[in-house]
Amino acid sequence: MKAEIVATGTELLLGETLNTSAHYLTGKLSSLGIEVDYHTTVGDNSLRLEQVLRQAMDRSDLLVTTGGLGPTADDLTKELVAKVLNLQMELDQRSLNNIKEFFGRRKAPMPSSNEKQAYFPKGSKILPNPIGTAPGAIIENGGKTVIILPGPPFEMQPMFENYALPEIQRIIGPNSERMNERVLKVFGIGESALEEVLGDLMHLPDLSMALLAKRAEMHIRLVARGTVAASEKVLDALDKTETEIKRRLGDKVFGRDQETMIGIVGQILKENHLTVSTAESCTGGLLGAALTQEPGSSEFYLGGVVSYSNSLKQQLLGVNEKTLGLFGAVSEEVAKEMAEGIRTRSGSDFAVSTTGIAGPGGGSDLKPVGLVYIGFASTEKVYAQKFQFYGERESVRQLTVQAALNGIRQYMLNKERGLHIGDG
Amino acid sequence: MKAEIVATGTELLLGETLNTSAHYLTGKLSSLGIEVDYHTTVGDNSLRLEQVLRQAMDRSDLLVTTGGLGPTADDLTKELVAKVLNLQMELDQRSLNNIKEFFGRRKAPMPSSNEKQAYFPKGSKILPNPIGTAPGAIIENGGKTVIILPGPPFEMQPMFENYALPEIQRIIGPNSERMNERVLKVFGIGESALEEVLGDLMHLPDLSMALLAKRAEMHIRLVARGTVAASEKVLDALDKTETEIKRRLGDKVFGRDQETMIGIVGQILKENHLTVSTAESCTGGLLGAALTQEPGSSEFYLGGVVSYSNSLKQQLLGVNEKTLGLFGAVSEEVAKEMAEGIRTRSGSDFAVSTTGIAGPGGGSDLKPVGLVYIGFASTEKVYAQKFQFYGERESVRQLTVQAALNGIRQYMLNKERGLHIGDG
Repeated sequence: MKAEIVATGTELLLGETLNTSAHYLTGKLSSLGIEVDYHTTVGDNSLRLEQVLRQAMDRSDLLVTTGGLGPTADDLTKELVAKVLNLQMELDQRSLNNIKEFFGRRKAPMPSSNEKQAYFPKGSKILPNPIGTAPGAIIENGGKTVIILPGPPFEMQPMFENYALPEIQRIIGPNSERMNERVLKVFGIGESALEEVLGDLMHLPDLSMALLAKRAEMHIRLVARGTVAASEKVLDALDKTETEIKRRLGDKVFGRDQETMIGIVGQILKENHLTVSTAESCTGGLLGAALTQEPGSSEFYLGGVVSYSNSLKQQLLGVNEKTLGLFGAVSEEVAKEMAEGIRTRSGSDFAVSTTGIAGPGGGSDLKPVGLVYIGFASTEKVYAQKFQFYGERESVRQLTVQAALNGIRQYMLNKERGLHIGDG
Repeated sequence: MKAEIVATGTELLLGETLNTSAHYLTGKLSSLGIEVDYHTTVGDNSLRLEQVLRQAMDRSDLLVTTGGLGPTADDLTKELVAKVLNLQMELDQRSLNNIKEFFGRRKAPMPSSNEKQAYFPKGSKILPNPIGTAPGAIIENGGKTVIILPGPPFEMQPMFENYALPEIQRIIGPNSERMNERVLKVFGIGESALEEVLGDLMHLPDLSMALLAKRAEMHIRLVARGTVAASEKVLDALDKTETEIKRRLGDKVFGRDQETMIGIVGQILKENHLTVSTAESCTGGLLGAALTQEPGSSEFYLGGVVSYSNSLKQQLLGVNEKTLGLFGAVSEEVAKEMAEGIRTRSGSDFAVSTTGIAGPGGGSDLKPVGLVYIGFASTEKVYAQKFQFYGERESVRQLTVQAALNGIRQYMLNKERGLHIGDG
């Protein structure tokens, strides 16, 4: 099945709005094994839009449109799809009721212009829009399918996911090949090292593997093609490869698909009923911000100190003036005193500290930009890890946050296994 | 002049890579007064790409392509442009030398496949690529112009800016109308209130105004059209409107164009040789992270406390247990004690605190989600501001950071004017 995506909206042709919808839809269609051949963006101009729609329906089996479903006169997608397919426009009474209710909930009368949003090409199956006033539609006509979606991504995406996707799955049937994707997330190993370790797995016959470098982690994307009927075999291939990757990379693999480092660390801390506190220098509060990103973080995060100046390191964390003088603020010793300082003051089970040179200035031969020490303190021991990161200021800060979270994760994993970090 | 943009690259049709180039180029072309009618994305498929190029050259005056300039066999843009325009491909010796040098600097021999990157349709003016191996080209042919650019945005953008833009300006000439843009950035007033205050300015004859809602600020985008010859008149119209907007909005306007709230606050603090410290609850470290975003922030930021738990508010900030019991953690009184606590402990000139309910849980009738108190302490006085924000957790946190920074800015502005906040 060959598909194309047409986006309409003059705002997309003025450099104001970035068209993320084509990207989103392409990913979804590709994963169903549907080949997307074209994206076209065109303004709210009836001649040009009609011509683009006509061409798309000529050359593709599936056409997905976004935008042009608003109440104003220059919103024309449904009308022009009807024209190109030689269909009448018809009122959908249920959609009209929904739009009236939408305004009712806002204690406002429905402007008469919105009535337009309840008309569709004859034979449309309506795709409801629980978020806005513009419903979408799917039209099957002469072996071709047109799916009409609204422009705003926060309306388009749930409509596609909940209502359009099942229709597409029905149309392509269970015997078409799907792309089954799995993403493994890795921290603590770079792209070229990964290529070396996993090279022989990258050319398996029934599975493709790609490495994607993200700002502070690597993603390993596995894709296996297969029909729904053969899904057990496909899942088995994915499982086997995942197991082999984990065997080679060990606990460098921290998560999968939608999982995030902070999500996983939060979960481990909650499950173990442990609390953590932070002492941040080079990250300036980013680590605390990451730990408090998700609701419910007060269950495990007590807070901490941002000791951007040496005086606050002494004042609020009890770092020894002599330690600062002898080793400097960016040192293993200070990282350890910071972590132990906040742990004893906060009464947390565990504490993490960061001190480093985020750059671009402040580096030297002995302590170059990107040098970071992360300190860890528990009731049992205090230790620090040394990192040399590369990249601009914000990358160094983000990598430091990720390494600090990963340090908590590794400590907990090793504790469960009866191993001990930092004894060396 | 009518333009269109064609992007080629199979990765753009797999949902892996987001096409940001069309967005970037459209903004640049629009600001030159050039109407962009279409964006098309097509894979590295010679039949489809040729058809798309032929159609684009038929219907537009200016065609800008991105991608398909690599060394491999499926990189076909230049070859197909030559085919459609009936031109031979010719070696550009200087480009070949540059590519060889590029590999020379990396101490690697040039693979023979890269030679392809030095061939161009006859009559091309070469656009150098200082970052990668793929030069671009501009071809003027029969009243039409084709600009060929590489795919990676970090190669495409500097090439466009430095080499393609001057050529386009030459072609359209000084008498064509340009769009002159100015963006005013506003905090502390919403979209509908702005519409009311500025409504009559939104329909001026020689200037258009648009309001753009960003996550934690509003942008007022002014656009005035005019020829280069009339640029003084155009700038005058922009200046006059800016002055009128500032007269109406006062210090709610915090910046312009590339300026950011944190950039401006940092600048004011540095200029006045003042230091600041923070005590954060609901923002969990985000305020400190914002203050330390730019290099050189240690000149004005000393650090602070993330007091996510009540015990840390008492322990590290000296917030009174009775105040917490009587008024609750989210209260004007606690915000003030937090600010004063960190100011006296850090010895900073100024301190800011945040305490609020970021949600989605934790709200009540009396203290709903989005209620935030921001405390301020200087050597002269201690006060707090109350805010009621709307939106999801991350929005409430970002709005709180912005309001805290804006509070520092307003304090400093009023001090300069001899006014005093918080006396009431």
